[in-house]
Amino acid sequence: MTVPVGIVGATGYAGQELVRLLARHPGAALDTAMASDRASSASLPGFDRIWEGPVVPLSVPDLVDRVAAVFLTVPEALAAELGPPLLAAGVRVFDLSGAFRLVDDAERQRWYPESGGALPCQTAYGLAERHRDAIRDARLVACAGCYPTAAILALAPLARQGLVVGPIVIDAKSGISGAGKSPSERTHFSECHDNIEAYGLPAHRHAAEIEQEIGTAVTFVPHLVPLNRGIFETIYAMAAPGVSDEDVARTYTDAYGDAPFVRLRRGRLPEIKDVAYTNFCDIGWHLDPRSQRLVIAACLDNLIKGAAGQAIQNFNIAYGYDERAGLP
Amino acid sequence: MTVPVGIVGATGYAGQELVRLLARHPGAALDTAMASDRASSASLPGFDRIWEGPVVPLSVPDLVDRVAAVFLTVPEALAAELGPPLLAAGVRVFDLSGAFRLVDDAERQRWYPESGGALPCQTAYGLAERHRDAIRDARLVACAGCYPTAAILALAPLARQGLVVGPIVIDAKSGISGAGKSPSERTHFSECHDNIEAYGLPAHRHAAEIEQEIGTAVTFVPHLVPLNRGIFETIYAMAAPGVSDEDVARTYTDAYGDAPFVRLRRGRLPEIKDVAYTNFCDIGWHLDPRSQRLVIAACLDNLIKGAAGQAIQNFNIAYGYDERAGLP
Amino acid sequence: MTVPVGIVGATGYAGQELVRLLARHPGAALDTAMASDRASSASLPGFDRIWEGPVVPLSVPDLVDRVAAVFLTVPEALAAELGPPLLAAGVRVFDLSGAFRLVDDAERQRWYPESGGALPCQTAYGLAERHRDAIRDARLVACAGCYPTAAILALAPLARQGLVVGPIVIDAKSGISGAGKSPSERTHFSECHDNIEAYGLPAHRHAAEIEQEIGTAVTFVPHLVPLNRGIFETIYAMAAPGVSDEDVARTYTDAYGDAPFVRLRRGRLPEIKDVAYTNFCDIGWHLDPRSQRLVIAACLDNLIKGAAGQAIQNFNIAYGYDERAGLP
Amino acid sequence: MTVPVGIVGATGYAGQELVRLLARHPGAALDTAMASDRASSASLPGFDRIWEGPVVPLSVPDLVDRVAAVFLTVPEALAAELGPPLLAAGVRVFDLSGAFRLVDDAERQRWYPESGGALPCQTAYGLAERHRDAIRDARLVACAGCYPTAAILALAPLARQGLVVGPIVIDAKSGISGAGKSPSERTHFSECHDNIEAYGLPAHRHAAEIEQEIGTAVTFVPHLVPLNRGIFETIYAMAAPGVSDEDVARTYTDAYGDAPFVRLRRGRLPEIKDVAYTNFCDIGWHLDPRSQRLVIAACLDNLIKGAAGQAIQNFNIAYGYDERAGLP
Repeated sequence: MTVPVGIVGATGYAGQELVRLLARHPGAALDTAMASDRASSASLPGFDRIWEGPVVPLSVPDLVDRVAAVFLTVPEALAAELGPPLLAAGVRVFDLSGAFRLVDDAERQRWYPESGGALPCQTAYGLAERHRDAIRDARLVACAGCYPTAAILALAPLARQGLVVGPIVIDAKSGISGAGKSPSERTHFSECHDNIEAYGLPAHRHAAEIEQEIGTAVTFVPHLVPLNRGIFETIYAMAAPGVSDEDVARTYTDAYGDAPFVRLRRGRLPEIKDVAYTNFCDIGWHLDPRSQRLVIAACLDNLIKGAAGQAIQNFNIAYGYDERAGLP
Repeated sequence: MTVPVGIVGATGYAGQELVRLLARHPGAALDTAMASDRASSASLPGFDRIWEGPVVPLSVPDLVDRVAAVFLTVPEALAAELGPPLLAAGVRVFDLSGAFRLVDDAERQRWYPESGGALPCQTAYGLAERHRDAIRDARLVACAGCYPTAAILALAPLARQGLVVGPIVIDAKSGISGAGKSPSERTHFSECHDNIEAYGLPAHRHAAEIEQEIGTAVTFVPHLVPLNRGIFETIYAMAAPGVSDEDVARTYTDAYGDAPFVRLRRGRLPEIKDVAYTNFCDIGWHLDPRSQRLVIAACLDNLIKGAAGQAIQNFNIAYGYDERAGLP
Repeated sequence: MTVPVGIVGATGYAGQELVRLLARHPGAALDTAMASDRASSASLPGFDRIWEGPVVPLSVPDLVDRVAAVFLTVPEALAAELGPPLLAAGVRVFDLSGAFRLVDDAERQRWYPESGGALPCQTAYGLAERHRDAIRDARLVACAGCYPTAAILALAPLARQGLVVGPIVIDAKSGISGAGKSPSERTHFSECHDNIEAYGLPAHRHAAEIEQEIGTAVTFVPHLVPLNRGIFETIYAMAAPGVSDEDVARTYTDAYGDAPFVRLRRGRLPEIKDVAYTNFCDIGWHLDPRSQRLVIAACLDNLIKGAAGQAIQNFNIAYGYDERAGLP
Repeated sequence: MTVPVGIVGATGYAGQELVRLLARHPGAALDTAMASDRASSASLPGFDRIWEGPVVPLSVPDLVDRVAAVFLTVPEALAAELGPPLLAAGVRVFDLSGAFRLVDDAERQRWYPESGGALPCQTAYGLAERHRDAIRDARLVACAGCYPTAAILALAPLARQGLVVGPIVIDAKSGISGAGKSPSERTHFSECHDNIEAYGLPAHRHAAEIEQEIGTAVTFVPHLVPLNRGIFETIYAMAAPGVSDEDVARTYTDAYGDAPFVRLRRGRLPEIKDVAYTNFCDIGWHLDPRSQRLVIAACLDNLIKGAAGQAIQNFNIAYGYDERAGLP
């Protein structure tokens, strides 16, 4: 028994990755790949023998007719528009946008004014390692953002148990695929290559998402660095008085001992090359026992664990498959 | 005595390089930098303390009033439109487009239909190492294209003297800045990075320019490779029977012995890193004495020797300065 | 029933890729990963949850005791030394080096003097698309080289049937992983980045391998370009008089219609990004009907189709598995 | 009147940059380029028509005979060995190593145990914008390190005047040329490309240098990012209560109003592409008036302002030239 699934937004970078992964997923039958508007069709060059279907124009009735679950990888306004009718028709939704991530209405209106009204019922925040049970029961899974995934996995266990105090700084570095597929001066090769750009000041909406999950304020500054796929976050905090390296290690192990996609790197820091093209998030840290300064590093592939892979991991949980099914 | 000069198209990659070089040229006073249309103005971020003037909207009357020479780095159609009135007003023109490069009217109409009618009088093909005298006397210098500069410098001496025969293949590799500053899917970092793309088939107009200067047909295939600045051309031909490596070396030395920007690399092949950010064109070759197969490699910085630097080299010749003035 | 297999040379780039692929191959049980010398052991950082075994020192007796098939990814001299005792003990060998590729003894002595004496019996040249039957029956498979794989797949069908004539030029561009994992000035980031380097003149031993398989002489010049994984070859030849684009297409289709890893790109040229991290070789071409000039482009991932993937494809054929088993 | 100068360590990346810059410096005559040992000689490929001298073996007597000033770009132990005899012979020394940077003897012994005994008299810390007068009078200039230059220029004016408080985090990103020219796994293209690596934990000696100059403790974590030239530092601190954006701007302007190579970027953050191949250090910042969180970004070219250019800037001051002489 496989679940018939559809994708809306199949031509973007996350969408293409969804096609690639779902095409060989043992528990999903990729039925329909749609563009993110009602007029465009397209083909996916380079996908021969991987998935050879067309990318058809967006149509909610067609989705409702054909599939049981939909992956949305479209702008927030469109996700907010598509979610309710799909849910009403009984289709399960895995949304990769930010439209449904913030639980607090005021926060959601502030950061995603295009996302419309109240959160639908049975919405879960889609970070499997933290909300496995809610995802299992959800009709709508608001998959975690790429930057927040690394930050929350690194910080939530420590912050929720009071192991870290003081100002928390998240210095995040992302490859250019994180900026999306639309051509712009910002994504022009000659502008990115040999360059680093900090952005998101004074405030980036991903900070709100991180704060919701870890329960404390952060300073979050993202940077574009000249690589294609991968996020590396260096996180600076203070360990609470008396907290030891052993405490940190045990807290992480308790949190992620059974998580198939979190790898702990005690005593060394992770590197992007070990997580690229995988669904892993690697976490390492260093605690200076004299000063209690704690430096954590976390990295992942923004298109897999930060987008398509995470959505499929959530799908696996929702449908009772092995959490690793269909994932590299 | 410095020559008051202007630039049209100052915000593009070649235009910015012209600003940077002319701002400190000992014989030129950069008076005016214009956009490539009549409505836009701009500033050049990152140019503080290098050149702090504004980029003003295009205006031919202003140019005529203020400058003695103009550098055009604009699309062919606009270059074709601007050239005649500037010349008529006595302004000397250094054009970096292809509009005036092809001498044969039919060829020019074929490859550059947007370039209008007959070539203006006193037009020179702006490759200093081959046409120094014509450039000295010209009112309009049609600066050689980036790909043709390397190919012609490598092939013209040998071809004009009959040292090479048989089919000539030019496999050209260019950095992405050669594709221009306009954002497109093709110049998106994530599409270029870790990729190679061949283009220009069935035929690229730069082949016509090369053939005009070397006097024989070529197969020319350009490729985009993931670096920013630089062109590397690998050229395959047969040496005529009896031609020796020594003959090739002597022919090159005769041609370029006094050329300040051509460096001959006998016995080894050049590399882009040695020419990047310079006005040099480096040429190396290997002749197999058993088969007479000749492999030549030539490389240059497409924005300097392939564009802005070459134009300034031509300017230097036209105004009687040291050919190297103001060039790195 | 799975085949117990071993790898010698597991820490190099091709070796790591073999580990990654064999660890999840449905028909192979990766029993033993060895270093390429008898003193070293190592771990593979970043392989947690992929393959967690140690890399042990090289030992032929241990291999003979434990595995039915061995993948060798070691220098030619060592491959030549290890092959005969493994074969004598009944172990099937898949060699990724050049030691056993050249059938003609004189040619092999010339290009691989370190490879020792006569070719072992039942040696097949390991390019599945051309020698499927021989591979099925072989005890030793000399897997095709990375550059030759693309060139032979592109040229052999045309050359063997007389569709191409005249001098053949192969301009090959490889990512830096093709230069191996040993640190050197040549592989230093700052030397490769933003650079292109041609090498292999006057002659590269891969030309002999290509010529053996296509039956005609070629000019072959490899280049290092600043990307990590991927080979792009631009091939220049003349189509024989009367040969049409349709003839070329039909010849390719006849040759590769049932080959799961060759994708034909009629009417457009392939790009590295479509084959990276896959076992595909994509081939496109353009034939100019006026001049009969034929330009072919072929590309593949040098570590997969050019090394580890190809070896596993050969293993699949040798053991009667689906040719695609375990391959991305 | 030009100053005869020598370089020791001319084949490294900073050494080559010194050759390139000094070869055309109007006030220096580059007399001698030496290797960093007494046995090696070398040539500098790619330097034809830039500087064509040989790189000769290290010889202190030859230096003493021939030059008035020496630039040392060698390991600390060798710098510590060469400094005293050169000074004793009346040669002025511009040292690019860390051997003489730390004024406190205990700190220097801790971080640079190879640097020997007491600091020579008339040693100045070579960061022109902070110690112009001391450099003018010095016999030995210990040129500031690449990472410290950006950090100190960004922080010293604020920290020295009490505008910042609380923990200071410096997240530094460097291109690979900063790791030096020696080949290693760490600088292999395939290991760096598409990767980010954090290092320097638990503590990096550049932190001591920064702390010496700004007078307060910092958390400093350097990263290698996949670009060649350039350092980008993101600095996190708290502005003292009541300190406004205007106060920060005025403090910077007071500090650097007459500094030709510091460019302030009020209201936006700097980018590496604007400083690459120049001697500029660009500084931008953002102060959140609600939280007093201050984010500063500073960037420079590690081989110019972080090494060779800075040393020449110091040379210019020491010899009374325009501070900008010979610098791009």
